[in-house]
Amino acid sequence: MRGKLAILAGGGAMPAALARAHPDALCVTFENVAAAIPRVDAHYPLEAFGGFLDDLAARGVGRVVLAGEIGRPPLDPAKFDAFMVRLGPRLLGALQGGDDALARLVISVFEEQGIEVLGAHELLPELTAAPGLLAGAEPSARNRADIDRATDILLALSPLDVGQGAVVANGLVLGIETQQGTDAMLRFVADTPESLRGTSGGVLVKRPKQGQDLRVDMPAIGPDTIDGARKAGLDGLVIAARRVVLIERDRLIRAAEAAGIFIFAEDL
Amino acid sequence: MRGKLAILAGGGAMPAALARAHPDALCVTFENVAAAIPRVDAHYPLEAFGGFLDDLAARGVGRVVLAGEIGRPPLDPAKFDAFMVRLGPRLLGALQGGDDALARLVISVFEEQGIEVLGAHELLPELTAAPGLLAGAEPSARNRADIDRATDILLALSPLDVGQGAVVANGLVLGIETQQGTDAMLRFVADTPESLRGTSGGVLVKRPKQGQDLRVDMPAIGPDTIDGARKAGLDGLVIAARRVVLIERDRLIRAAEAAGIFIFAEDL
Repeated sequence: MRGKLAILAGGGAMPAALARAHPDALCVTFENVAAAIPRVDAHYPLEAFGGFLDDLAARGVGRVVLAGEIGRPPLDPAKFDAFMVRLGPRLLGALQGGDDALARLVISVFEEQGIEVLGAHELLPELTAAPGLLAGAEPSARNRADIDRATDILLALSPLDVGQGAVVANGLVLGIETQQGTDAMLRFVADTPESLRGTSGGVLVKRPKQGQDLRVDMPAIGPDTIDGARKAGLDGLVIAARRVVLIERDRLIRAAEAAGIFIFAEDL
Repeated sequence: MRGKLAILAGGGAMPAALARAHPDALCVTFENVAAAIPRVDAHYPLEAFGGFLDDLAARGVGRVVLAGEIGRPPLDPAKFDAFMVRLGPRLLGALQGGDDALARLVISVFEEQGIEVLGAHELLPELTAAPGLLAGAEPSARNRADIDRATDILLALSPLDVGQGAVVANGLVLGIETQQGTDAMLRFVADTPESLRGTSGGVLVKRPKQGQDLRVDMPAIGPDTIDGARKAGLDGLVIAARRVVLIERDRLIRAAEAAGIFIFAEDL
C-alpha cells in the first residue's frame, strides 16, 4: 500500500498534465501561489504546513509530486503553525541558499513524515525526450559550437547551484539563466540591441544542474519557450535527454516546426 | 619619442574624460559607433581600417587608447580596404569568440603597426579605486555572503571569457552579466517579480575576468550604475580595487550617498 497520490500544484502546465493523467490524485495548492489546475481538492496557507501534513495523512496520502514552480511566496511568520515554527531555522537556511536548498528541505520534510516524493517525470515518462532530433533541422556546425559553449557555461556554474539554461549566439553569450527563469531570460535576449549582437541565430541549452534532484525543479520547455526563442531570434533548443520536461509535447513540437526552430535532445 | 596619443572613442563617459585630461590627443571615432566626445579630429569607416592606420602614422601617432564600448557595429565586407581583406580570417575568428578575442585582435593589429596600446587607467590613474569604502555603510554580514557568492560565480565563469558582473540578493542569483552589459543586467534585476525575490537588498559585484587585458574592455561603474542599482533594490556595489573604472567619480559617489548605496573596493 503506497498510499494515495497528491499533486502539489504550482505554476505552468505541469499540474494540469499530471491531474489529467492521474484522475484519482488529490490536487492541492497553496495560498499566494498561481496554480493552473483543472480541479482543486484542498487549498492551504503555506504558514499552516503542519495542518497541511495532518490533512494529507488523514486523507491517506502516501505519495506526493511537486508540480510546477511555486516561486517564493511571501510568508508571514506571525501566522506560522507549530510545525512551521519548529521548521523555522531550517527554512531560513534554505531560503538563503539556492533553489536546490529549498527543494531539498521540502523533500526532507515529506520524507520525514513517511511520504514518498516522486518526480513528475516518473509519473509521466512521456514528459521527457529520448536522444535525437524532435523538431526542425539538424543543428549546424555553428550551432554545435554555440551548444558546446553554452554547455561549458552551465557545467562551470553547476557546482554553485545556479544555471539551468544559457543562450549563446555565434559565440556571444547573450543569456545565463538566473532566479527569474527561462522565459525571462529569453525576453532579455530578445531585447539585445542589434549593434551588440550582429546577426540573429544562436541556441538555448537547457539541462539540470549536476546532482540536481529532478523530483523538484525539473527543467522544462513548452510552447511558450518556442515563442520566446522565436522572439529572441534563436535557431534552436537543445535539451538534456530524459531530464528536461516537454510541456504539451505535441503543441510544443508543432510550434517549433512552424517557427523553424529545432529541438534536439542529447546526453549533455 | 613615444609619438602622439590617439583616443579611439566609443560610448560612455570615458572618451570625454580622456579628451579633457589629454587636450593634445587626437580624438577619432568610427562610423556607426555612438561616441560621446567633446571634439572629433577624424572619423573613419571601420571597413577602411588600413586607411585609418595610414592616417594615424601620417599624423605621428605612436600611442592609442581604446576608450568606451564600440559594440559590434555592422561591417560591409564589400567596402573592405586591402588591409581589412587581409585581416578577414583573423577578424572572423575573433568575432566568433568572446569580447576578449576581439580585444586581443585589435591590440595585436596596433602593436604589429608599432603603435603602443595603453589602458585608460594608465592615462588616468585616478579612474580606479584603492581598497576600501568609497560611499555608504560598511557591507553587512548578509552582504558579505552575497559578495562571496557573486565572486564565486564570476571566478567560475572567468576561464570561459564571460562574466564581469553578477547580482546576488539574500543568496539568490538574480543576474549574471552577459554581452549586453551591466546596465541591461540591472534593468533585468529590477524587473524581477517580488514573488521570486522576496525582500529587496543584494549586491552587484564587478571585476575583470581573470587574465583580462585591461587595455580594452575595462569594467566600469558610473552614476548610471547607481541609478540602475537603486532601481534594482540593491544595497551596494563591490568592485575590484584598481581594476574597475569609476566614471565621473565625484558625481558617482554623491549619487551613491544620496541613494544609500555602498561602494566598496576590494582585492577580489
